Amino acid sequence: MSEATEIRKVAIVGAGLIGVSWATVFCAAGIDVSIFDASEEQRQSALGRLDANLKLLRESGLHGAEDAHGKAVVYDQLEDAVATADYVQESVLETIEAKSRVARELDALVGSKTLVGSSSSGIPASAFTEDLANRDRFFVVHPVNPPHLIPVVEIVPAPWSDTAHIPVLRALMEDIGQEPMVVQREIEGFVLNRLQGALLNEAWALYREGYASADDIDRTVRAGLGLRWSLMGPFETIDLNAPGGIADYAARLEPLYQSVAQSRTEPQAWSVGAIARAKEELAQTFAGQSREARARRRDEWLLALKQAKAERD
Amino acid sequence: MSEATEIRKVAIVGAGLIGVSWATVFCAAGIDVSIFDASEEQRQSALGRLDANLKLLRESGLHGAEDAHGKAVVYDQLEDAVATADYVQESVLETIEAKSRVARELDALVGSKTLVGSSSSGIPASAFTEDLANRDRFFVVHPVNPPHLIPVVEIVPAPWSDTAHIPVLRALMEDIGQEPMVVQREIEGFVLNRLQGALLNEAWALYREGYASADDIDRTVRAGLGLRWSLMGPFETIDLNAPGGIADYAARLEPLYQSVAQSRTEPQAWSVGAIARAKEELAQTFAGQSREARARRRDEWLLALKQAKAERD
Repeated sequence: MSEATEIRKVAIVGAGLIGVSWATVFCAAGIDVSIFDASEEQRQSALGRLDANLKLLRESGLHGAEDAHGKAVVYDQLEDAVATADYVQESVLETIEAKSRVARELDALVGSKTLVGSSSSGIPASAFTEDLANRDRFFVVHPVNPPHLIPVVEIVPAPWSDTAHIPVLRALMEDIGQEPMVVQREIEGFVLNRLQGALLNEAWALYREGYASADDIDRTVRAGLGLRWSLMGPFETIDLNAPGGIADYAARLEPLYQSVAQSRTEPQAWSVGAIARAKEELAQTFAGQSREARARRRDEWLLALKQAKAERD
Repeated sequence: MSEATEIRKVAIVGAGLIGVSWATVFCAAGIDVSIFDASEEQRQSALGRLDANLKLLRESGLHGAEDAHGKAVVYDQLEDAVATADYVQESVLETIEAKSRVARELDALVGSKTLVGSSSSGIPASAFTEDLANRDRFFVVHPVNPPHLIPVVEIVPAPWSDTAHIPVLRALMEDIGQEPMVVQREIEGFVLNRLQGALLNEAWALYREGYASADDIDRTVRAGLGLRWSLMGPFETIDLNAPGGIADYAARLEPLYQSVAQSRTEPQAWSVGAIARAKEELAQTFAGQSREARARRRDEWLLALKQAKAERD
């Protein structure tokens, strides 16, 4: 149960991978959830998938066997799932059509204080909440998939969202062990995908132009940049990378980075040929390893990092 | 001693932080090193600093107490340090003047098969090796500071470097436990700092334009992007982030990232005002924590990751 907020009952709308992962996060934090999905198949499998996620957290030692879980109940009707919810986490298909339809339905069903967060990774709330009666209580609350392994959450208001609710959303996310950040106003890609995109665009350009293999570019990140960035963001990193801190670093290295930026003022497509080459190279690099095994290895690593951070704090 | 290469004796030229960290890597791998620095003070403190680094690795369990170390000897004359070296790792001050002077001296002193790698993080080898008699055996071998905690190494040939030596350098770096990657031809910032710069430039733009606080931008990386990137590079990450792999991901998300690139075709300076604000915000975020304590916390984290990866392999 959340201490810092008045949010006690949470509804999960959309019970795919992301919705069930959100249910995992809330339940592990002791918050009851009601679950709805338009697909009967998803509804029937939701609790089994939730239990598997919770088992993973228990086995990793991140959640003690003795710790109380929130209860999860699956409903056949959206109305029943959200009727008494203080907070709705919506994770339906990422199309404007699907987001708009569900937003309209929620607008008519939720209580007068209910907050709604959409898991949208790219579509801003302004694209599907403008005409709602309760549009001041709709936000994007964007996780990284899956949120029970990766804690960051982007909270993004639409122009008409009441920003007085942002501290409540932030406190809710902190209470359940996530790491919320606030994007002050809408921008394409929000912050996370813009940062990822900037690095990806440069990686593709270097690859397309033949400066390094895909595996060597990947190594530069996994055996270099990514190690520090798993503990510290880019600003904290550069603050420690010059004797006089961030301003000293900027004085020394901004000319280099400005020059890098000036060399990329005419963005090129990733290019069909480069994508085909990268696909082929990755197939060779990971020959004999199934996608499932690779994803499992990644998830075990994320769990180990989560555990290591929990032990340090 | 290196098995895959014929490199048995290594000289470290420049015994500052990076030079001594390189000595640590070689000694921990069982390779003897001879050390030279033009500064008597650096020469006198070098072995003490080397021992402290080796002690850190031993205490973390990364290097057993029973494991044999390479021997390190400090010489007062460059000539004596490099006379019989198969490989010279040069880590002097990063100015063209200093790099040029030492390169000329090494050119006259090294044996007929000796390879020379410069720790240069930005100055390409072509800027200080053009006139050397042995210029085909000079390369940039760029570590991330400190190499005994961060394994990636960029190997960058000058236009006249003999690329037949690249597999030898790569094998040497692998033998000593580093993670080498090859930049096929010179480019400003090489690969690592171009990738870091692309992300930093976007981070500064978002901060300058008021989209998020420095701490929230940092959180997006340390609690999001950086977690996966500490195990997998950007290409491997997106290959696992779409059901059909990297080509499927490109088909779905390239339009978003192209749009991000198109929004940044007129690069702005990081801006004096934004740098001053970020400095102030970081001072508040880390109030009461010394830079030494923060750097120690970072290094402990890097050691823990190194250990976790060693245990998985």
